[in-house]
Amino acid sequence: MTANKARPIVTLTTDFGTSSPYIAQMKGIILTRNPELQLVDITHDISPQDIHGGAIVLDDVSRRFPHGTIHVAVVDPGVGTERQIVFAQIGEQRFIAPDNGLLTFVVRRTKPQLIVAVTKETYFLPEVHPTFHGRDIMAPVAAHLSLGLRPQRLGDQLDSLVMLPIAEPVIEAQRITGVVLQIDRFGNLITNITTNDLMAAKLNPQIHVRCRDQEIEGLVNTYGDRVPGTLVALVGSNGRLEIALVHGSASDRLGARVGDEVVVMS
Amino acid sequence: MTANKARPIVTLTTDFGTSSPYIAQMKGIILTRNPELQLVDITHDISPQDIHGGAIVLDDVSRRFPHGTIHVAVVDPGVGTERQIVFAQIGEQRFIAPDNGLLTFVVRRTKPQLIVAVTKETYFLPEVHPTFHGRDIMAPVAAHLSLGLRPQRLGDQLDSLVMLPIAEPVIEAQRITGVVLQIDRFGNLITNITTNDLMAAKLNPQIHVRCRDQEIEGLVNTYGDRVPGTLVALVGSNGRLEIALVHGSASDRLGARVGDEVVVMS
Amino acid sequence: MTANKARPIVTLTTDFGTSSPYIAQMKGIILTRNPELQLVDITHDISPQDIHGGAIVLDDVSRRFPHGTIHVAVVDPGVGTERQIVFAQIGEQRFIAPDNGLLTFVVRRTKPQLIVAVTKETYFLPEVHPTFHGRDIMAPVAAHLSLGLRPQRLGDQLDSLVMLPIAEPVIEAQRITGVVLQIDRFGNLITNITTNDLMAAKLNPQIHVRCRDQEIEGLVNTYGDRVPGTLVALVGSNGRLEIALVHGSASDRLGARVGDEVVVMS
Repeated sequence: MTANKARPIVTLTTDFGTSSPYIAQMKGIILTRNPELQLVDITHDISPQDIHGGAIVLDDVSRRFPHGTIHVAVVDPGVGTERQIVFAQIGEQRFIAPDNGLLTFVVRRTKPQLIVAVTKETYFLPEVHPTFHGRDIMAPVAAHLSLGLRPQRLGDQLDSLVMLPIAEPVIEAQRITGVVLQIDRFGNLITNITTNDLMAAKLNPQIHVRCRDQEIEGLVNTYGDRVPGTLVALVGSNGRLEIALVHGSASDRLGARVGDEVVVMS
Repeated sequence: MTANKARPIVTLTTDFGTSSPYIAQMKGIILTRNPELQLVDITHDISPQDIHGGAIVLDDVSRRFPHGTIHVAVVDPGVGTERQIVFAQIGEQRFIAPDNGLLTFVVRRTKPQLIVAVTKETYFLPEVHPTFHGRDIMAPVAAHLSLGLRPQRLGDQLDSLVMLPIAEPVIEAQRITGVVLQIDRFGNLITNITTNDLMAAKLNPQIHVRCRDQEIEGLVNTYGDRVPGTLVALVGSNGRLEIALVHGSASDRLGARVGDEVVVMS
Repeated sequence: MTANKARPIVTLTTDFGTSSPYIAQMKGIILTRNPELQLVDITHDISPQDIHGGAIVLDDVSRRFPHGTIHVAVVDPGVGTERQIVFAQIGEQRFIAPDNGLLTFVVRRTKPQLIVAVTKETYFLPEVHPTFHGRDIMAPVAAHLSLGLRPQRLGDQLDSLVMLPIAEPVIEAQRITGVVLQIDRFGNLITNITTNDLMAAKLNPQIHVRCRDQEIEGLVNTYGDRVPGTLVALVGSNGRLEIALVHGSASDRLGARVGDEVVVMS
């Protein structure tokens, strides 16, 4: 590495939980092979085995990183079975993940330029345990890539990745029917309805948003635009329609859950 | 950056929670602009929208860091409203935060040398979303500062920062009345009564500490100075009076909460 | 530091919890003394004062790190009392910890080459608070070591470390009786029965594993080898017998706890 080249970045996204030793085992393996790279935790609090939740986070986060960043994602209930491990070059970002749908939202945004089945054992740990491919395959492979290994060397190219079925919002004239996709720590309900959907439905300026029999009038720009305790609807920072409670939790107020129907009308 | 210069350090303190994608979005933005800096998480588990709790942590932690460290703090219930974002040089530390009281305890300890309203859009992301100034304003501004930008370029200078009202202990002859300020993970009750307060009250050596109708005699030096299961009072590692239960949780034992009265008498 | 030398790595393992300011105080102290080193969090979610839990994590994780890594471990209910702080060189890893049994599992695997009582105050912070030796002693000592300080300079050499009593599995002909050692986030029950124990017991190929009156037949290679909802037994990624529920939590299904008896028979 020359003095002018930035340190490579490897991110980690897992469902291991912050109390687990598994995360740091991966970090030790990676740093042993390339102590100069920079590790960044995306999150380790994906719900256990929640591939869909992990897929949303990867899409929200990965595209904010420097070109060439290597994103290692381990939400892997099928570890050790016939599911493959894949490398994918998608836009300017690189990914190593089980081929179980974890890259669904990233791929929906940007078509992969290169997909490789990670099978070349030269780049794995000498002993691969069937329950922890994150440590024994993905970690050392990420380190090798950070040192300049060409991804084509990892195995055969693939044509496509496994994709999760995704609930798409139904867009009719002046009406969109979607669902709650995620609930964040503040109790904000993040829906699968995007800015593009709102424009496509040709809504009148006076829209209504309905969730769990509560009706909200109009969109605000930000949480503080109404007095504390008011339910508001707004387009959130990732371009999705959100329902929030000013200075409180919309999720608690409405008793809402992931999957609940959200309707926008005008 | 020359070979002799240390990598700049940027810390992050937020109420986003460790499961949130918001933290890593900020990290990606920062590293895209300066991949050589060192990121340090202070904590992301400030209670949602708890400006007071965030203000205490910033004071406890920031002054332990190397000179010139940039501390980015995002506990920001008023995001997108008329509250300003500020840069402050305070002692040898630099801060970027909403001007909502988050720097109250830091400023109480040390008068700021420079306060600047962060308004110069050149240093923001091209598109600023009204609900996430941490990502779209504070993160890129921190990266610019780490690359050498003079803070005066960020906007106009300000005379003062917004300060939270703070419950000060009442000091009488041989008696101090304070409150529980924080409860830590071990169940220790950390009060707003400092070493200085204890000295100012001219207490006799035989003091009593009372909280929730329980009386504790004398101060110990450390938790292990009494047998397990004993309630003790001591001056904690940040110079504040604490109530602890040896090998247990004083909070559980006493059913104590933040804001409870604590009286020291002799 | 020359251009060819990798940045030293310092890891942190504590029971402070991710919401605590104590972790970042230690990081600030360390980086102030050596801003070029790389900090890695192992975990801060060891249960409060759970020396045994911390000891298992240190053993699982530390040996995966680059040679010369400095592991700072703070699970320290006896802080400020007569328990010592020690430096230990164990295999290619270096440790700084209270001498309270935290290194038990590491030492069981590999005999220490060097143990030193950390007493030389020159390397401490100028003021040492009796309740936080992690910050005031261990952090600055770690930084000094990362800069090349010879560990012999820290104090007098010791012959041995404090060891925890450990429940060893009882091995009889065709029968092993052990206990649940840990329960991970996925609800997997990790036992104290190792691959070596399984071989020593000369079991027939058709083994049975019993825990809380449930009997499991045979060992699988990985979780996905049975249909969802099946209880399985397998050798986990750290070489210990585990009981798992495919796509679920064995801990919830069995109502199991740490310390529960696990019997392997053939």
